Amino acid sequence: MKVVIVGGVAGGATAAARIRRLDEKAEIIVFERSGYVSYANCGLPYYIGGVIEAPQELTLQTPESFFERFRVDMRVRHEVTAIHPERKAVSVRNLTTGEEFEESYDKLLLSPGAKPTQPRLPGMGIKQLFTLRTVEDTFRIKTYIQEHQPKSAVLAGGGFIGLELAENLRKLGMEVTIVQRPKQLMNPFDADMAALLHNEVRRHGVKLALGHLVEGFEEKDGGVDVLLADAAPLHADMVVLAIGVTPDSHLAKEAGLELGVRGSILVNDRMETSVPDIYAVGDAVQVKHFVTGEDTLIALAGPANKQGRIAADNICGGDSRYAGSQGSSVIQVFDLTAAVTGINETTAKRLGIQADTVVLSPMSHAGYYPGGKLMTMKVVFEPKTGRLLGAQIVGYDGVDKRIDVLATAIRAGLNGVQLKELDLAYAPPYSSAKDPVNMAGFMIENVTQGLVKQFHLEDVERLPRDGSVTLLDARTEEEFAHGHVEGFVNIPVDELRERLGEIAPGKSVYVICQSGLRSYIACRILAGNGFDCYNFAGGFRFYDAVARDQCLIEQAYACGMDQVR
Amino acid sequence: MKVVIVGGVAGGATAAARIRRLDEKAEIIVFERSGYVSYANCGLPYYIGGVIEAPQELTLQTPESFFERFRVDMRVRHEVTAIHPERKAVSVRNLTTGEEFEESYDKLLLSPGAKPTQPRLPGMGIKQLFTLRTVEDTFRIKTYIQEHQPKSAVLAGGGFIGLELAENLRKLGMEVTIVQRPKQLMNPFDADMAALLHNEVRRHGVKLALGHLVEGFEEKDGGVDVLLADAAPLHADMVVLAIGVTPDSHLAKEAGLELGVRGSILVNDRMETSVPDIYAVGDAVQVKHFVTGEDTLIALAGPANKQGRIAADNICGGDSRYAGSQGSSVIQVFDLTAAVTGINETTAKRLGIQADTVVLSPMSHAGYYPGGKLMTMKVVFEPKTGRLLGAQIVGYDGVDKRIDVLATAIRAGLNGVQLKELDLAYAPPYSSAKDPVNMAGFMIENVTQGLVKQFHLEDVERLPRDGSVTLLDARTEEEFAHGHVEGFVNIPVDELRERLGEIAPGKSVYVICQSGLRSYIACRILAGNGFDCYNFAGGFRFYDAVARDQCLIEQAYACGMDQVR
Repeated sequence: MKVVIVGGVAGGATAAARIRRLDEKAEIIVFERSGYVSYANCGLPYYIGGVIEAPQELTLQTPESFFERFRVDMRVRHEVTAIHPERKAVSVRNLTTGEEFEESYDKLLLSPGAKPTQPRLPGMGIKQLFTLRTVEDTFRIKTYIQEHQPKSAVLAGGGFIGLELAENLRKLGMEVTIVQRPKQLMNPFDADMAALLHNEVRRHGVKLALGHLVEGFEEKDGGVDVLLADAAPLHADMVVLAIGVTPDSHLAKEAGLELGVRGSILVNDRMETSVPDIYAVGDAVQVKHFVTGEDTLIALAGPANKQGRIAADNICGGDSRYAGSQGSSVIQVFDLTAAVTGINETTAKRLGIQADTVVLSPMSHAGYYPGGKLMTMKVVFEPKTGRLLGAQIVGYDGVDKRIDVLATAIRAGLNGVQLKELDLAYAPPYSSAKDPVNMAGFMIENVTQGLVKQFHLEDVERLPRDGSVTLLDARTEEEFAHGHVEGFVNIPVDELRERLGEIAPGKSVYVICQSGLRSYIACRILAGNGFDCYNFAGGFRFYDAVARDQCLIEQAYACGMDQVR
Repeated sequence: MKVVIVGGVAGGATAAARIRRLDEKAEIIVFERSGYVSYANCGLPYYIGGVIEAPQELTLQTPESFFERFRVDMRVRHEVTAIHPERKAVSVRNLTTGEEFEESYDKLLLSPGAKPTQPRLPGMGIKQLFTLRTVEDTFRIKTYIQEHQPKSAVLAGGGFIGLELAENLRKLGMEVTIVQRPKQLMNPFDADMAALLHNEVRRHGVKLALGHLVEGFEEKDGGVDVLLADAAPLHADMVVLAIGVTPDSHLAKEAGLELGVRGSILVNDRMETSVPDIYAVGDAVQVKHFVTGEDTLIALAGPANKQGRIAADNICGGDSRYAGSQGSSVIQVFDLTAAVTGINETTAKRLGIQADTVVLSPMSHAGYYPGGKLMTMKVVFEPKTGRLLGAQIVGYDGVDKRIDVLATAIRAGLNGVQLKELDLAYAPPYSSAKDPVNMAGFMIENVTQGLVKQFHLEDVERLPRDGSVTLLDARTEEEFAHGHVEGFVNIPVDELRERLGEIAPGKSVYVICQSGLRSYIACRILAGNGFDCYNFAGGFRFYDAVARDQCLIEQAYACGMDQVR
């Protein structure tokens, strides 16, 4: 059997090694357009910032080491220019010599990846303008920085690459501005959770120009003017475009393979394309979203590696199936860790899926053991069934652990209420006897069983301030004095039973505290005394962080901080 | 409704707060024998070592704060001396005043916990002999250390408390020896994994006297002689007994409640005892093991808290069920973290459950990002079905995360092979594109599908050295020269294809490498060339660690280190 693989990074390299392990006799040829195979895509920003020091660290394997171990013929700087399914061959160009040739295959695996989305804007070709996707891109940026010592950068796009690059350029002492049309960074997160990221990057000196449409680029004073639709240009010594990636599916398209959403390569759950003996994996292929079942694109290394292994199994006569991606991901944002799995509330609403949320602020480990840190956790679920739809966590410690537990729970089909039963490992340096994930389960149970009714961020402004409902802050007097939401009156939870007479009978009560725990207890006290009561999901801590961020984003408008005392 | 609760720590305190939240009108009285409620049992060793500095940190709530918030009448230093189910009352002694009285109840919840096992040995009463279970015990030890400045301690028992205390006493500069009859510390771990813990505690100066039976204690030179059955006494300035805990079920027994295994209180999954309106939770009750279904005792804070909430639900007319404990736990052992969930191989064998294992040494995060650390992971599964039975992990970083993912997978009923599909969050500082848990899934798939046959630690010595089989070490020449298993010959995996002629045809080949990965690849090469091949689970790294530990334990015998070069 002769297998040709197009692309030697995550999915392609994994598949090549697995095919060899399954079939010692197969002939395996990998064509990789760049000069490197099996490289650490996700490490590239860290090389620019110097966190990863040696360039060879970026490549997990070389063509030579791959051949030694796996007898895989890894041909770098070889571009496949056409697929000929009818005669089971590909056209290849050796980018070093210019030589062109055809290579036949019994099985073909496409792992071409995705390429940085290049908007059609004036000034796209100027030399201070970069994209970051390959090892070559990385060296280009690193070399430019070393040679020209730029003092400032504008990053167009605030997703994974944009944020990681922002942090690494700050490490080099550069001024960094992130500009983009959406009003929030990191769209896997809901806007409220993203606000926590905004606050963190601002705290580390990154400027955010959110809600601005980039219209083009102009060289100016040795640097670049980034032209905006509705504001003065942003000037910087260099610009990196990181507005997303597009499946690199032109080969597949030209060969008549069926395409999926947004130009991706269509595959079934065996990673087979529409043409026999041609498989495809990685950032270029359409996947089923594990939670929603919808056809989508999820460009992440984990799924690419898994798909590579599955394609290899099937190429070698097995029957492995890919059950879909759920978009689990994590990012370090300066001191913060932000992680997500499944879908967020925004996506649920877009898809017409009924979604409720719990928001909590648990400690990363037992409060009595030093070093514990608060995290903010938002879990999205179907209110009627308790079905878990997704989770987002932002915090300083233990975030990646909880997102992986939640990712596993979602994968295994656990209900939100079942999170309370998880038997997780506890010792003071690691967790609490009631782990944050258990706490989320308790809260989802309370909500789905009707023990607690909630109100959310978007409700706060809408609540009437005309006395028709009671707005109650259950924190201490000191906390209340330090800052509260306009219109709320203060009765500390521990005084509530004595001061019930101060609450107008027959009117609904909306309760807030710092994190949502005391307000929950207050709600239970009130409910036990006949009141109709609503608990604010997330507490003042969450409200305040989001409100402050919104004010900064909307500075152009007369928002100020008047509603947050 | 009037609820009386016996015991105000984990399960009792949780239940009291939950009952209040469910029923604002209930009368709730908690009798706690000690002077403290809701205290952090698991933090006590860290207070002795000074990691937790303030004593008030150890108590999450005081009787006063509990009353303020929950209107729970928390009576500390009150011991319940008898239960009278026939008239629904308990006898209580006020330990401060000596007063005795009866308190009636509608519902009674027993959360008496467990007490340190006190062996009947000569010298048990001497003043330099301590146990550690309550806040009072902790203060007693701390005060003794402050006043007498002991330079050495013998800890009888090497479980959670023994190990945590060993570390904390070392922090105070004391000489520490752990003595116990079993030849391994921490019996939730298999002996091979425990060897990694032995090596770590020795590295930090703790002496291990394993396999010794303690026969008594004698005061000597202001300290204690710990008398051993088969060796000279161990002398130290103080001794702490930490040989385990026993359910504190005497009240239940005297009141005629049915008991379960090892004197525990028998409850159903609603946490109801055999007597109507009496519930029991926590370290004193029998639980179903979630994995094996057997009746067992699992004294851990997480289950106690969950059971308290379930009992509260049922006391208030709900229907909550406890689905069993799976023994997930984690411990910090100096720089190491050791964690476990489900059952280990030893337990599986004892119960007659067919068990196979995979052992791997993955990095805590991507190798190319600085700071990654190796961990050792052992996953136990049923070979025919792939059913997950348990997992043990020892390492420096990311251990608690992976055990919680595995604990969740087990809870949700995932098969070992399904671990490969888990969509976990990857970024270089947190994980690898193939997370360690995914890797375990790949390995379990390879084993259950027959792609790889394994051999294990216990097989290594038994393998014939007479040439009837080939023993092959697939590491580099340098690695081999640095240390190898007696009788194995070296052919580096990358030279194997050229040197196949050196391997005797028709004979089985047993392959080892450093971690198990290269030997797996070697096995696939050999199998592809017609050889019957076995891969060593865990690699030389694991073999070497265990062998060195065994030699140290068996020093009395002429073991030496001759088999490990």
